[in-house]
This record gives sequence, C-alpha cells and structure tokens, in this order.
Amino acid sequence: MLLGRPFRSDSLGHTLLPKRIALPVFASDAMSSVAYAPEEIFLVLSAAGISAYVYAPWVGLAVAVVMAVVVASYRQNVHAYPSGGGDYEVATTNLGPTAGLTVGSALLVDYVLTVAVSISSAASNIGSAIPFVATHKVLFAVVAIGILTAINLRGIRESGTTFAIPTYAFIVGMFVMLGWGLFRIFVLGDDLRAESAGFGLKAEDEHLYGLAFAFLIARSFSSGCAALTGVEAISNGVPAFRKPKSRNAATTLLMLGTIAIVLLMGIIILAQKIGIVYAHNEDDLIGAPPGYHQKTLIAQLAETVFHGFPIGFFFITTVTALILVLAANTAFNGFPVLGSILAQDRYLPRQLHTRGDRLAFSNGILFLSGAAIAFVVLFGAEVTKLIQLYIVGVFVSFVLSQTGMLRHWTRLLRTEADPAQRSRMKRSRVINAVGLSATGTVLIIVLITKFFAGAYIAICTMVAIFIVMKMIHRHYDSVSRELEEQEWDGVLPSRSHSIVLVSKLHLPTRRALAYARATRPDTLEAITVNVDEADTRALVREWEQSDVTVPLKVIESPYREITKPVLDYVKRVRKDSPRDVVTVFIPEYVVGHWWEQVLHNQSALRLKGRLLFEPGVMVTSVPWQLSSSTRARTPGMVNAPGAVRRGFDDRS
Amino acid sequence: MLLGRPFRSDSLGHTLLPKRIALPVFASDAMSSVAYAPEEIFLVLSAAGISAYVYAPWVGLAVAVVMAVVVASYRQNVHAYPSGGGDYEVATTNLGPTAGLTVGSALLVDYVLTVAVSISSAASNIGSAIPFVATHKVLFAVVAIGILTAINLRGIRESGTTFAIPTYAFIVGMFVMLGWGLFRIFVLGDDLRAESAGFGLKAEDEHLYGLAFAFLIARSFSSGCAALTGVEAISNGVPAFRKPKSRNAATTLLMLGTIAIVLLMGIIILAQKIGIVYAHNEDDLIGAPPGYHQKTLIAQLAETVFHGFPIGFFFITTVTALILVLAANTAFNGFPVLGSILAQDRYLPRQLHTRGDRLAFSNGILFLSGAAIAFVVLFGAEVTKLIQLYIVGVFVSFVLSQTGMLRHWTRLLRTEADPAQRSRMKRSRVINAVGLSATGTVLIIVLITKFFAGAYIAICTMVAIFIVMKMIHRHYDSVSRELEEQEWDGVLPSRSHSIVLVSKLHLPTRRALAYARATRPDTLEAITVNVDEADTRALVREWEQSDVTVPLKVIESPYREITKPVLDYVKRVRKDSPRDVVTVFIPEYVVGHWWEQVLHNQSALRLKGRLLFEPGVMVTSVPWQLSSSTRARTPGMVNAPGAVRRGFDDRS
Repeated sequence: MLLGRPFRSDSLGHTLLPKRIALPVFASDAMSSVAYAPEEIFLVLSAAGISAYVYAPWVGLAVAVVMAVVVASYRQNVHAYPSGGGDYEVATTNLGPTAGLTVGSALLVDYVLTVAVSISSAASNIGSAIPFVATHKVLFAVVAIGILTAINLRGIRESGTTFAIPTYAFIVGMFVMLGWGLFRIFVLGDDLRAESAGFGLKAEDEHLYGLAFAFLIARSFSSGCAALTGVEAISNGVPAFRKPKSRNAATTLLMLGTIAIVLLMGIIILAQKIGIVYAHNEDDLIGAPPGYHQKTLIAQLAETVFHGFPIGFFFITTVTALILVLAANTAFNGFPVLGSILAQDRYLPRQLHTRGDRLAFSNGILFLSGAAIAFVVLFGAEVTKLIQLYIVGVFVSFVLSQTGMLRHWTRLLRTEADPAQRSRMKRSRVINAVGLSATGTVLIIVLITKFFAGAYIAICTMVAIFIVMKMIHRHYDSVSRELEEQEWDGVLPSRSHSIVLVSKLHLPTRRALAYARATRPDTLEAITVNVDEADTRALVREWEQSDVTVPLKVIESPYREITKPVLDYVKRVRKDSPRDVVTVFIPEYVVGHWWEQVLHNQSALRLKGRLLFEPGVMVTSVPWQLSSSTRARTPGMVNAPGAVRRGFDDRS
Repeated sequence: MLLGRPFRSDSLGHTLLPKRIALPVFASDAMSSVAYAPEEIFLVLSAAGISAYVYAPWVGLAVAVVMAVVVASYRQNVHAYPSGGGDYEVATTNLGPTAGLTVGSALLVDYVLTVAVSISSAASNIGSAIPFVATHKVLFAVVAIGILTAINLRGIRESGTTFAIPTYAFIVGMFVMLGWGLFRIFVLGDDLRAESAGFGLKAEDEHLYGLAFAFLIARSFSSGCAALTGVEAISNGVPAFRKPKSRNAATTLLMLGTIAIVLLMGIIILAQKIGIVYAHNEDDLIGAPPGYHQKTLIAQLAETVFHGFPIGFFFITTVTALILVLAANTAFNGFPVLGSILAQDRYLPRQLHTRGDRLAFSNGILFLSGAAIAFVVLFGAEVTKLIQLYIVGVFVSFVLSQTGMLRHWTRLLRTEADPAQRSRMKRSRVINAVGLSATGTVLIIVLITKFFAGAYIAICTMVAIFIVMKMIHRHYDSVSRELEEQEWDGVLPSRSHSIVLVSKLHLPTRRALAYARATRPDTLEAITVNVDEADTRALVREWEQSDVTVPLKVIESPYREITKPVLDYVKRVRKDSPRDVVTVFIPEYVVGHWWEQVLHNQSALRLKGRLLFEPGVMVTSVPWQLSSSTRARTPGMVNAPGAVRRGFDDRS
C-alpha cells in the first residue's frame, strides 16, 4: 500500500536544495500560470473586438510590472522571515491573529482553486492535441484530480528530479518556441499566421468608449494578474534552501520572476504578431470552418511556429499540461501543511497537527480533492470562469502580507541604532510599501471587475472557513479555560470497585475476570443483563458449576435493552459510595476485517460510549484477539507530501 | 424525539387481541392485495384483446381456489406452531437450516417488495382522484416511504384501533360498492358503464391460439396470485390472540380468506359487467379522448357505481390507499422482527437480536426503506412491473412451509398412537399436501411466466442475501470454534504494569494518574510522545516542579507520529515481562456534541484501536466530562414496531 520511506523530523536527514533544484521545485505554480494568463487577457479584450488586441502588450506590461514589484517585495519577506512561515506567519506576527486567520482562509480557498484552475487548463491544453479530451474536459479533469489524490494518499516519494525535468523542459521548450518564432518574424521576415488569424469576431460591444473601455482594460488586467499566483511559494520554503538560505531563496525568486515575465511578454507579443483571434464561444468566430474547435493560445503558438514539425507542437502541449499538473500537485503538498500550521494554532482539529499521521493528511487531501472536483464540475472545467474566483484569495494574502511587512520594519526601526542596518531596513520598508500599494490597487481592481463575475463565491467561501476556524478556536479556548478554572483537589479515590460485563462464560470473559482480578480491586463482581431468559438461566447454571469465584449478578431488563440497565446499575454503585472509582471491564473481540468488526462488540461499544458520560467511572477494554486479527496490518506511515519543499527530504 | 412508552418483555403487560381487532391487525396486507390483483389479471389478458376478458372470472376463480387451499393449509400451521415462528420456524425445524435460511431470504426480499408494490399502488389510487399525484407517482411514493420510515423510526404507538378503522372502512366500503353495483345491474337492471367501456384495444396479439394462449392465461393467473400475499401473516402472530389462541387465529384466518375471496371475485365480475377496458399503455386505448389518464380498476368501479355521488368515489380511493399504506407499514413491523429472529440464529449481526435496542431497529428500518425506494425508483412506481418480482418470494416461502408441514405430520404420526389424534393428523397432512401441490404448481407457473419479466431480479437478490447470511453464520461459527478449541489455563497474570498516556499536565491527566494509582499496579509510569520539542520540554519542566510523583518517560518520535512509538514501547514492556498484564490509561475528553468529538480524542482513539491488537494489554479510558457533556441525552428507547402483532402491547 505504501511506497517510500517516511520522513524524519530530526534535521539530520535533510538534504538541502541547491538553487538549480529549488527553482523547479518552487516554480511550477508560478510558471504554469503563464499558460492561461495571456489567453485570458486576449479573451477579455475580445469583448471589444479584434481592434482591442492592440492593448494586449500594454496590459501584459502592467502585469509584468506588478509581478516585478511583488517579486521585489517577497525578497524582503524571505530575508525577514527565513523560518518559512509564509504569509500566514507574517500576518499573524505583525497584524494579529484575525489578519493571520484571514490569510489562512484565503490560502485554503486558493489551494482548492489552484487545483481546479491548473487541471482545467491542463485539460484544455491536452484537448488541443487530443480532440476527445476537449469534448470531455470535465471528465478528464475529474479523473486527473482523482489520480493526483490517489498518488498523494499513497504518499509519493518526492524528489527534486520529479520537478526539475518537466519544469526545465517547459522553460526550455517555451524559450525555443518564442525565440524561434520571433526570430522567424523579425529576422527572417517569415509571415507566420495562426490558424485563427483572419477570423472575424462577433464582439459584444464593438465600440466601447471612455469608462466602459477603461473597465474592460481593467478586467483584462485583473485576469492577467493570474500570472502572479504561486509567486509567494518560495517564501514558505526558505528552510529547504542551502546556506545562505535567505540569499539563495531571494536569488531563486528573482530568477523565477524574470523567467515568468519574459515568458508572459514573449507569449503576448508572439500571439499578437501571428494574429491569433480568441473568443469566449467558438460561434462568435466569423469565418471559422464548421466544427472548428478553438485550441489554447499556447497550442496555437506551437502549431504556428512549429508548422510542419508536429513533434514540436506535441512537446509544447505535453510539457505545458505537465507543469500545470505539477502546479496542482503543489496544492496537494501545501494544503495539509497549512492545515497542520493552523491546527497548531488551534484553528483546526488538533490531530491535524501531527504531521506524521497518515489519517490527518489523508483527510486534508480528500477534502482538497473533493472541493476541487466540486468547483471543476460546477464550472464545467472552464478556466475563464474559474479564474474569476481565483485571484481574490491570492491578493488578499499579498496585501495582508505586505501590510505585515511594513509593520515589521517599522517595529524593528524603533529599536535599531546601527545606521547601515537602518538604511537597509528603510529601503526594505519602501519596497514593501510599493508592494502594498501595487497589490492593494490590484486587489481593488480585481474586486471591482470580478466581484459579480464570481469573486463573491470565493469571498463567501473564505468567510465561511474563517468563521468555522474561529469557532473551533473558541471551543478549544473554552475547554482550556474550563480546565484551568477547576482546581485539582489532590484527593485519591478511596476504594476501587470493579465490574466485569459478562454475556457468556467463554475465554474472553475468563481473561477479563483474570485481568480484573490482577488490578486488585476492593470489590469485584460480574454482571450480566437478562435479555433472553433461557440464555441467562444457562449462564447462571454454568457459572455456578465452574471454578469461577467472582459473584455473578443478573440485571433485569424489562425492555430487553442492554445499555440502560447497566448504566442504572453503575449509577447506583456510584451513589452508594461516591468516593470510590468504578472500573467497568468489557471483554472485546479483536478481528482483522472491518466487516467482522460490524459483527462483534456493537452493544459493548454503545455501552462504552454511554459509560464515559458517568463521572468517576473508568471503562477498560479487555481485548481477545481472534486469529483473523493478525491479518491487520501494523499502522502504516506515509511519505508526507510537501517533504521536499519543507526541507525534509531524506534521499541521503 | 420519542413518543409513547417502550414495550416490556415480561408478559404481564400484554393485552391479547380479540378476533374483531386481530382481523384488521393482520388483514391489511392480504386484503390490500385485492386492490391490484384483479387489475393485473385484466391487464395481462388485454394482450389478447378485449375478447380475452371473458376468461377473467375463470382466472379469478383459479386464484380464489388457490387462496382457499392456502388458507386451509395455514390453518394447520397455526395449530401446529402456536409459537408464532411462521414459515421460517416451520422450514427450519422440519427441513433444516438451509431451507429455513431460504425462507428467511425470500421473506426479507418480500418485505421490501411489499412496501414498493403497496405504496406504488397507493400512489396510483390516489392518482385516480388527484391527477397531480398520477403524473408524479415516483415522487409521491418516495415521499410516502420517507414518511413511513420517519414514523417507524420515532417508534409509533401502535394500537388495534389504528388498524381497525381503515381496514373495516375498506371492507365495508368495498362491500357496499360491490353490493350496490351488482344490485343495480342484476336487480334494478341499470346499464352501468365504466368510463373506459367501449374503448377499443390495440392488442399485441389479437389472435392467440393453443400454447401461446394458454401461456397468456397462465401469466394472468400468476399475476392474480398477488392476491395471496400476506395470507401467511397470521401464522406469525398466534401469540397475540386471546385464548384459545390457535383456534381463534385459525378462525380469523378463515374470515380473512373468505372476505378476500369475495372481494376478489366481486371486483372481477363487476368490472367485467360494467365493461372496463384496461391497457398497459394509454396509447393502446382506441377511442379514448386525448389526454385520457387511465384510473385504477377500483377507482373506475367506484366512479361508475357511485356516479353522481362523488363522496363515494373519494371514500373508496382514500380507504384503498390507506389500507395499502397500512400493508406497507406491516413490512416495517415485520422486517426488524424477522431480522431479530435471524440474528438470534446468527445469520445477521448479533446486536440486531436485542429487540429493545433502538439502533438495531433503526438500521433495519433504514435498510428496508432504502431498498424499497430503490425498487420504486428503478421501476418507476409501476405496480405491473414490480409485481413480476413480487410473487416468487411469497411462493418460495409457501412451498417450503408446506413441505415442512408435511414432514411435521409424518414425524408426529410415527410416534402417535391415539387413533383420533392420528386421523386428525392424517387429515391435516392431506390438507398440507394439497397446499404443497397447489403452491408448488403456482410457483412453477410463476417461474415460467415471470422469470424473464423480472422474477430473476428477485431471485438473484434472494441468493445474494442467502449467501451473505450464510457467510455471517460461518464467521460466528468459526469464532466460537476458535474459542472452544483453546483451553483456559487458569493462570492469573503475575504482575500488573500500568502506563498513563500524557500530553499535558492538566486535570484530565491528574485524574487519570489518580485513578491508575487507585488500581494499585505493581509499576506505574507516565509516558509522553515527543512530537513537538518545545511542548515536550515545557511538559517535563512542569512535571518536575509539580507534586506528581509518578515518573514521566519521554518517547522519541522521529517521524512525529503518536501511535507507533507508543505501540513499540508497550511491545517492549510486554517482551520484558510476558507474564504481566499491561494497562494503558488514556485520559479522554467527554463532550456533548458530535462535532466537538471530532475536535478531541482522535489520536487517542486511533491509538486505542491499535493497542487492542496487542495481546496481554488492556486499554482503560479515563473520561473527563466537560461541561458540554451534560447536554447529551440519556439513551432513548423506542416503541418497538410490531409490538401489537407480537402480543407486546401495553395499553393496560
């Protein structure tokens, strides 16, 4: 069932990542978004007709500027918080728990949407090469999420190479494609024409002016900002870098940003040059052959540039789909990790904290995949629709993180005396201030242009998650308050009274009696509930004839019920001697299959559940292992997802 | 949540039923089938055109004869088995467990189909008065089953009156309708014409001859035999009758049979006289006005007889629907009772045996309603389709029961010397032999005419249930064999070693320590798993500064896991002193809401589950009741369904 070795929490086994491996490990999420961001820019502009495409490079440039600002800002984060806590830590430390929890909710939703958007985009890209996938996008996406889930449940053995090969293949492939395409156009003077070039567009509003047009540009820009998702990933992973950790992380972030900007701009310019026309709906394309199916932007670029060389086209669509799947997988790694951090701060059930725990991780993974599948099905695996929900969470997190950083520097500056340090801090503060104003502006634009287009769904989900986490936190708080308010009187129970529950006089009962006696109680008795007159009489007879010296009490059950009579009996014992502790021994069968479990112990389990509500009563299970119990596996351990990026790799 | 008082198993509180109440209590199932059986006879004959309707009375007569034979046979059963075990007991006692289990499987399927068929027929009858129900039959049926389920889950307070009023209303209503109708035709000479009279029929095979026609008549007959379902109910309920129980039960059975036969024949003859035409599909009716919706046979009778007196029509359709619902409710009563009998014989999970147990009953009721809903939805609430599955189970049970009775008398005759007794037994044996040959013939006819029409589905389900019950039985057998094969060595554990699991030094831990100490173990230690370095260090410090004298051991957990390190530690302790018994004390929070439960004890529960697999280890839960735990209700008890017919009524 389980592959790979579990990760260790002592730091000895860690392999730290050199920059050349760290880049692909952390880049897939950010890099993959260039696969859909440029397409969305064109798509929004299409509403105003093909003539609006002339603004695409300018919109792209605006996105690139914001990207540069964000990268610069996060380089400050990386230096200031090398512990890898990411935005949640920055917001919590500097702005308090409410801001932190907001970031936490935003990121949880964000992870779900990363899976939904990435896999939907992967489906579209593969669909450009294989028409069957294009017509069954939802099915393909659901199956893909299912496979990712299964892989992550089994515990994949992550390694830098897993990330490095597809990521570098994507980067190289894209550079070759863009380079060769632009070289042919600008140097060789070839007239490259996309398959959609020359199509007309039934535009919604051919003649948009003034405010309406500005709104369209703003919408196009905020869709393009999808390219920024995933940039923050490195700030969570600083501990995984080789020393000097922060500097290497900052350098890697710079590399990542540069590559992403170059790819983004390259794609937009090339797409415009070869005359790609893109519509929401294929029916809006004038002049398209009947049955024409719109390929993704990347696929159209590859087809045009590598015309007559189909391997190039298939290579590009494959690595694009691959890096998108890797990006989705990132969420599968990040989600449980964030869950464990939130659980540590008691915003989620405590047991999620123990990261080595298979079940805690499994629950997180299943929750993530269920939610992602729900979004994919609900929105028909349409990237354009999903992206309306996507960017809000990212920018909420950006803004709060940058605000936190401002506070961070201001606080440090209050105590710092060294002028060199002070000037460095001030410089950082300025960068973060620029970052805040840029991301804040984008967030406002996104909210204005996308709220009714779907962003409200993401916001409502965030609010709901926020409230649930707050309630969980409040519950834990009230429990610890309740425990603190009471004083331990230090008094030991005066006597112990043991009761063995009996249904038959067989080996499990005999063992329970022997064990109960080994605890040397002050009084020991066996009780049986009379639900069947004949059975009870037979038991009493057998008991009397046996060598058992423990007295057997028969409890009447007029309504042929088990739980209540026992409960009443125990209550009576407690009442007679309230200072005693009562121990109820329940013989239990232990079996190997879950379905065997259904056939045994059900009454005992229910009784146990009720007895726990009785103060001063302990319940002891005396197991009897049936032979099938040896089939049961020893508890497995999982290769925790996200190990590589958290610095817990043990390839050594 | 719960209504009514629970029933008592001591016989003092029983109210036994006089015949006038017993008749309606046991009759609803058998009586209600005349609501659909005649209709099905006409429907099958329709395939050969209206001219075939002339055979309807003869088919009805054949059904009536079989009914008379079955009633006579079951009167012998009632005398021979006054314990109320029914067909399952008769088959098991006389033919062995395999035959008994076959009857058990057949009856379980039969109960499900009783619900499905009765509610579907009720929907059609109400649909005849309210067109909206007719067009939303499936919805209506599912909702009706849902309501029945809810009522039975809450535990209805059954009383003879509940049954008496609708059943007598039905009987009286039907007799008035049939009597008045036949009186008007034969005495007053009125020319009564049904709304469908005069319609033509697009028959599938207008000119059927020879074997094909005989096959059609046989199919019509086997559909008509649906009228026999429920006749056996009284044989399960003999203990509920007043003394002389068997005689009163036999008399009631005779009354039931007589009424059913009279109603059946009356309906068929009246329907033929007023010229009702019935088709599978309304489109096959020639001359019907457009949008014509076929009413049920009973509804058409009522409409014609009570023409100009709509109250009569509504009364008949209402009481017909009511008695059908009562018949469905019978299954809700019988299913869990049969389940408890099968559980007693270890064919079903043991806990189902305890009849006072709310959960066991709830599971049975939910299973029944789920399966019935599945059938209703699958077959579109079409009585005609469902009836193809229905009759097989009933007749399998009839045949095996009659075979068992034959054996029963033969066995008794071997030892009986009294000639008067002998001749009475011989007479009974002849009656049962006739019963066997009649029901056996019908079963063969049903199998031949209905196997591919749907009976195979019922048979496959029966086989599957049979196999599952056989496997459950085998499991219980192998467990008791395993327990018998091992000898109890009688040696007591030499020492007891107690381990208290600690995560924090708070009140629950202190109580667990105090309780553990009260059991006076030979050694007592506290252990904690180091999943978080800082937390563990803080705990150790607090422990040292406190007044706790129990030593605390820190167990390392390199993979930040809880279960395995504890398990390994316990195993080591066991290995060092295999003759000792180890008790692991786990402090547990007790909370009132299920969702609070999710937030606590999860790691502890999992650990407990694993520790049970370790031989020589006891697990003791030391509960700490948080204030919310007081919200939890005391375990409720249900007013067990089927109490009246089992003789457990406590109206006294």
